[in-house]
Formats: sequence, structure tokens, C-alpha cells
Amino acid sequence: MKIKIRVPSTTANLGPGFDVFGAALSLYNEFESEYVPNARKTSFILDGEGEKLLPKGEENLVWQSMLETFKVLEEDKYNLKNLNIRIKTGIPLNGGLGSSASAIVGGIALANVLCGKELDKSQIADLAVKIEGHPDNVAPAVFGGLCACSKDGDGDHGIVLHLPIPKLKVVLCIPSFELRTKHARQILPESIGLKDVVFNISRVAMLTAAFCRGDYSLLKQGMQDKVHQLYRGKMIPAMDEVFEAAISAGAYGAFLSGSGPALAAFCKEEDGLNVQKAMVKRWEKENISIKSHILDFDTKGVLEV
Amino acid sequence: MKIKIRVPSTTANLGPGFDVFGAALSLYNEFESEYVPNARKTSFILDGEGEKLLPKGEENLVWQSMLETFKVLEEDKYNLKNLNIRIKTGIPLNGGLGSSASAIVGGIALANVLCGKELDKSQIADLAVKIEGHPDNVAPAVFGGLCACSKDGDGDHGIVLHLPIPKLKVVLCIPSFELRTKHARQILPESIGLKDVVFNISRVAMLTAAFCRGDYSLLKQGMQDKVHQLYRGKMIPAMDEVFEAAISAGAYGAFLSGSGPALAAFCKEEDGLNVQKAMVKRWEKENISIKSHILDFDTKGVLEV
Repeated sequence: MKIKIRVPSTTANLGPGFDVFGAALSLYNEFESEYVPNARKTSFILDGEGEKLLPKGEENLVWQSMLETFKVLEEDKYNLKNLNIRIKTGIPLNGGLGSSASAIVGGIALANVLCGKELDKSQIADLAVKIEGHPDNVAPAVFGGLCACSKDGDGDHGIVLHLPIPKLKVVLCIPSFELRTKHARQILPESIGLKDVVFNISRVAMLTAAFCRGDYSLLKQGMQDKVHQLYRGKMIPAMDEVFEAAISAGAYGAFLSGSGPALAAFCKEEDGLNVQKAMVKRWEKENISIKSHILDFDTKGVLEV
Repeated sequence: MKIKIRVPSTTANLGPGFDVFGAALSLYNEFESEYVPNARKTSFILDGEGEKLLPKGEENLVWQSMLETFKVLEEDKYNLKNLNIRIKTGIPLNGGLGSSASAIVGGIALANVLCGKELDKSQIADLAVKIEGHPDNVAPAVFGGLCACSKDGDGDHGIVLHLPIPKLKVVLCIPSFELRTKHARQILPESIGLKDVVFNISRVAMLTAAFCRGDYSLLKQGMQDKVHQLYRGKMIPAMDEVFEAAISAGAYGAFLSGSGPALAAFCKEEDGLNVQKAMVKRWEKENISIKSHILDFDTKGVLEV
């Protein structure tokens, strides 16, 4: 029995929506498990960028997430040891594109299919948030599309507000240097000045209205942020200048993808190439080598393929 | 020549939308000016609650705002001294219902009509924000309806996002005690913990989506706040309990009106009386005497009547 799961990359925050907004993008990881009758233990095969970088033993995040799922489903993992797990990483690691959310969701989904699909998407999301700690990458990885995510008053349950999927392209520029999420989080202040909080409240209102109405002219101001980009930007050469280059080339808005270092912009399909060129050109001035993509929003989320 | 201007009351913040969201309500102040040929100076007549509380001399905020307007329009105020100014205050003072925004907008509008209506509504709003300092009461007082207000990146120009006017009633409970806006602002912390900022970002997304979609079921969570009500609530006996009473009686959401002490709830028309009763009953337990109204959203803003 061979199972194949596809999970989209995700971009979180979208400017002012720190730890709340996230969108699924058309760049994917694939996770396969194959039952091997005579195997004595689970083995891991890694393709793509992950080949050199990800652990091939039981500490692998995909396998850890599978184990968590077996525990929840009260399934004895030893019935499931004869597996080949293959991970094809199409999502850059440590770029700010939700590669760890993808691994967690992929692992849960694999285990869920192995156990007879007892979990629905909401349950997959809840379990993934428990493992990942915050919902802004996990929710779009599970459901696809564009979400505003949070927890309820007690912090026990996830709340996912699904917003209309923008009729836009996403230009993504991924630099060659890395920025560990953990470090990118440590650099943030513990509290934010009231003026900056008010600024972000107003921008989140514009961001939300832009998507609800499909009025993308609101994004230029609606993607401005004073909560996290200000601080993380210090680790990213010419971030603001790359944003300006994107907007000058026709993008509606530009932002740091997740905790970075990837930068992203939203634009009309016909402006995609120009925006991409402008962003890459400006960033290369800093002697940074860049991989860049023009992506669509993923509409399906985690999927058995 | 007699000029009569009507300005709506306003309720600001709407829970998480601190210093950004504001709505105009169907409770009004009226401002009249009458030219008296042989008068030697401007005289002030005050009706309503303002009669005992507001200054009748040139320090009156309406007159101060008229003077600012004359200055902007380069009009010599001494040509306009033979005026009787009558102010009918239907909006409670110091309740958190935008009475000072109303006085400012009323004064500007009176002066504008006297000078030949050179200012349009955007210019009236810009001047009023300059006098008041923040836009969340001023913008709905000028334009009516429901707004998310802010300043642009440089803080020079107001930005007003007009949201659809909710098909809801607003239950307003105004207690007999006062809370000076200045004091209510001083009680706020200078900065907000990052977790609480994330909480409000998620709630503002829900609040905005609720209005854009007309999906008011989002308001129960979408009106939750951790930026200002937490602190101001300490000065308002049983605030959270009155909110709970409103919601138990069918309100979609409840909140502190502006800087208080008035409390407000949004509900369906058919639930208005029940919500009003529940809020008043709960609050009267604290030995507070309350005036209460069931209001509509004002759709017109400042108006020559």
C-alpha cells in the first residue's frame, strides 16, 4: 500500500497580520509512505533540498508528527513500522515558507490515512497547531487559501476565518542566506508601543477589507507593519528597498514572508514578470543570490494525491 | 440668516479597534448660528445637558473650532461677530459618545456655511482631526456610518475606510458617573505585550470581516479586546458582567463606547428591548443609575438641516 500526500507552502503574517494571517502557495512538499512487508524498521528517503539538511532517523519532524497522530488515534506504532517514508522537499527550508508546518501536516495526514482517515481537516489542523505552537502556517497548509487564524479566549481551540482567495499572483524571492525562525522570533520585542499597535490595527482593517472586497488598491497601505518587520528587517539587507522596487514595478503590496528571509509581493498576473525582475534586480545589488518564483494561491490545502 | 447644523454622536473603538474604528449613532447635537445686526459680540445659548456644564464664552469648543476654520479660510472673524450661537446638546457629555468631536465638527461646519461652503467633507474631517488629535470619532461624525480611520505613513493625512453600515441596532447604556477622556487615556499602558497584540490583530480581522460580509456571528469573538478595555474596565464596575448580560440576552457583541463609561451592544432589532433590559438590570445591581437608548446607525454624518 502506497500513500502519497501533498502539502502546500505557506506565507504568514502578510505585513501587519503578525501570527494571524497566512496563505497557501503553489509550491509543494510531497510525503509518501510505502508498506514494506519484511522491513524491520521505518526508513527515510529524502529528495530535493531536504536530502542534505533533514534528519533521516526517528527525530525527523514528519515521523514525530506521525507518532503524535498514532498516539491521538491510540494506534500502536509497532504495527506500522514496516514503512518506507519518502519526503520530496519542494519548499525551501528555513525560508519563511512554512516548511516545518508542511512537515507536521504531511506527517499527520500520512498517519491519518494509514489509520483509516479518522481525523477530519479541523482535527488535523488542531493537532498540527498543538505541535507547531501557532496556527498561521498550519491552517492554510491544511485548508488552502487565505486564512486569519487565532485561538479562542482560553487558547484551547483554533479559530480559522477563511477569506476569499485573491485573484492575484504571488512573487516570491528566496535569498541564499538563512534565518532561523527561532532567532527571528527572539529578535522581536516583548511589547509594542501603543502608537505602533494602533498603526497595525488600522492596517489589519484595510488588509481584511481588501481581501473581503477584492479591492486590492487597499493593499499598499494595508500591508504596512510596525510590529515585526521593523525588527526582523534589520537582519535582511535592503528589505524596504526591495518592497519599494516591487511596488514601483506594479505590485499592490510587499511583505516579509513569515519570519523570512524570503520576501513576497502580491500583484496582477500581467505585472508578475516585471515585479519579479525589479525585486531580484534590487536585491542582487546587495550581492545576494536569489531564487524566485511567481506562484498562485493554493486552493486545496493538504491532499492525498 | 439662520444656519442649523446637526452632528451625530459617535461610538469609537468597537472592542479591538482601538483608536481606529468608529460609528455614527442616531443621537444628535444641533448647532445654530443666527446673525443679529446690532449685536456687539457673539453670544452663546446652551440647551440640554450642556446648559450647566459647557462654557458660554469664547473658550467654548464650538466657537474655538469656528475660529480655527475662519483662520484656515482666511476670514476675518470680526466680520462675523454679530452672531447668536445656540447649542442643543442631545449627546451626553463625557460619556464616551464623541461629544467633543461633535462640537468640533459642528463648529467647523457652522463656520464653513457662514463662509460660503468652501470646505468639502474630507477637508472638514482633516481640520477636525487636527483639532481633536485622533480620527476615530471625527470621521464618523463627518461622514456617518461605520469607519476604520488612521493616518498615512507620515501621519499627515487621514485615511478613512468606509465599511458597510450594519443592519443592527445599538443598545447604549450611559451611567450617571463620569470618566474624563484624558484620565481614561492616562490609565493605558505605554506598550502592549506581543501576545495581546496578536490577540487584537486576530479580532480586528474578524470585526472587519463581520462588517464586510454582514456575518454578525463573528462579532462575539470579533469584539473581544486586550488593548484598552482591560485597563479602562478597572474604572467601570461590572463592565464584563454587563457585556455577558448583553450577549446572554441575544447581542452579537458588546463593548466600551470610546473611552467610556458608556457601554454598548450590537444586536438584531427584535432583540433590542431584551438586550437593553438585561444590560440595565445587571448594571443597576452596582447601584448605578443608567440612561439607556436603542439607537440606529446614523448614515448621513454632519448635515445642514
